[in-house]
Amino acid sequence: MKGAIRKDEYYVVIFGCGRLGSRMANWLSTMGCSVVVVDRSEESFQALSFEFTGFTVLGDATELDTLKEAKVDKADVVLVLTPDDNTNLMVAMSAKEYFKVARVVARAYDPNNIEMFSDFGIEVICPTLLAVENIKNVLYFIGGDER
Amino acid sequence: MKGAIRKDEYYVVIFGCGRLGSRMANWLSTMGCSVVVVDRSEESFQALSFEFTGFTVLGDATELDTLKEAKVDKADVVLVLTPDDNTNLMVAMSAKEYFKVARVVARAYDPNNIEMFSDFGIEVICPTLLAVENIKNVLYFIGGDER
Repeated sequence: MKGAIRKDEYYVVIFGCGRLGSRMANWLSTMGCSVVVVDRSEESFQALSFEFTGFTVLGDATELDTLKEAKVDKADVVLVLTPDDNTNLMVAMSAKEYFKVARVVARAYDPNNIEMFSDFGIEVICPTLLAVENIKNVLYFIGGDER
Repeated sequence: MKGAIRKDEYYVVIFGCGRLGSRMANWLSTMGCSVVVVDRSEESFQALSFEFTGFTVLGDATELDTLKEAKVDKADVVLVLTPDDNTNLMVAMSAKEYFKVARVVARAYDPNNIEMFSDFGIEVICPTLLAVENIKNVLYFIGGDER
C-alpha cells in the first residue's frame, strides 16, 4: 500500500462468491481493479456479471495452497466474505499475518464474533448490525412524525 | 398511527427470531415497546435476552391464524425478518393490505427482490446491499489515504 497506488490499480482478492462477494467483485471490476474471486463451488461464479474481467479460483479458502494460487501475497485488499465466520476469521488472519496484506476486511455473520475479529486487527462488517441500525433509523423516523 | 402515539407505546410484531429479529426484539423491549415475536422454532426464542418483556408466538408466519394470534391487526409496526424472502413478502403484504398496519418493514435477502417489495409499498431493508455500501466506504477511505 506504499507509493502512489491509485484505486484502479488495486489488486483485490475476494473469498466467497455469494450475493455479497459477487456484487463486490462485479463492482470492483467495473472500477478497474484487478479482482480474483475464490469459491469452492463452481456454480457460484455464475453470479459474476459480463462486466467482470477478473479471474476465478476454485478451491477451499481454508487451505493455504488456495490462498497462494489466488496470489494473496500480492493483494492490496482482501475481502473475506464466505458464509462461515470461523472460515472468515482463519482466512483473514492468514492474509494479515502470514501474507502481510495491508487491508483485510471480513464479514461476521454473528454480531457476537465482531470483537474476536477486531482483536486480531481485522476490519469487520456485520450485515446483521447494519440492518439493526437501519431499522432503528426507520423507527426513529416514525417517532419523529408530526401526528 | 393516528393520535399522539409515543414511541414507547408502540405495539410491534416481529416475524423471525433469528439474529436480526431477536436483536430488534430485545432492543424494542428495552425501549418500552410492547413486542410480540413470532417464529416456528421454539429454540429460536432462546436468543431473547432477560430484558425482553414481550410475548412469543410459536407458529408458521405464512398462516393467517398465526398473524391473528400475534394480533397483527393491533400493531403499529410489523417487522418481517424471516430468512425466506417469499415468506417475508407474503407476510408483509398480509400485514399491510389485510390487517392495514401503518408501517411494515421487511428484509430482502436477495437484492434482486427489493423492487418487488417496494412495488407493494413495503419498506425494505437488504443487509447485503448495506454491506456492499459499507465495504465501498472502506475502499473509498483507502483511496483517499495520503501516501
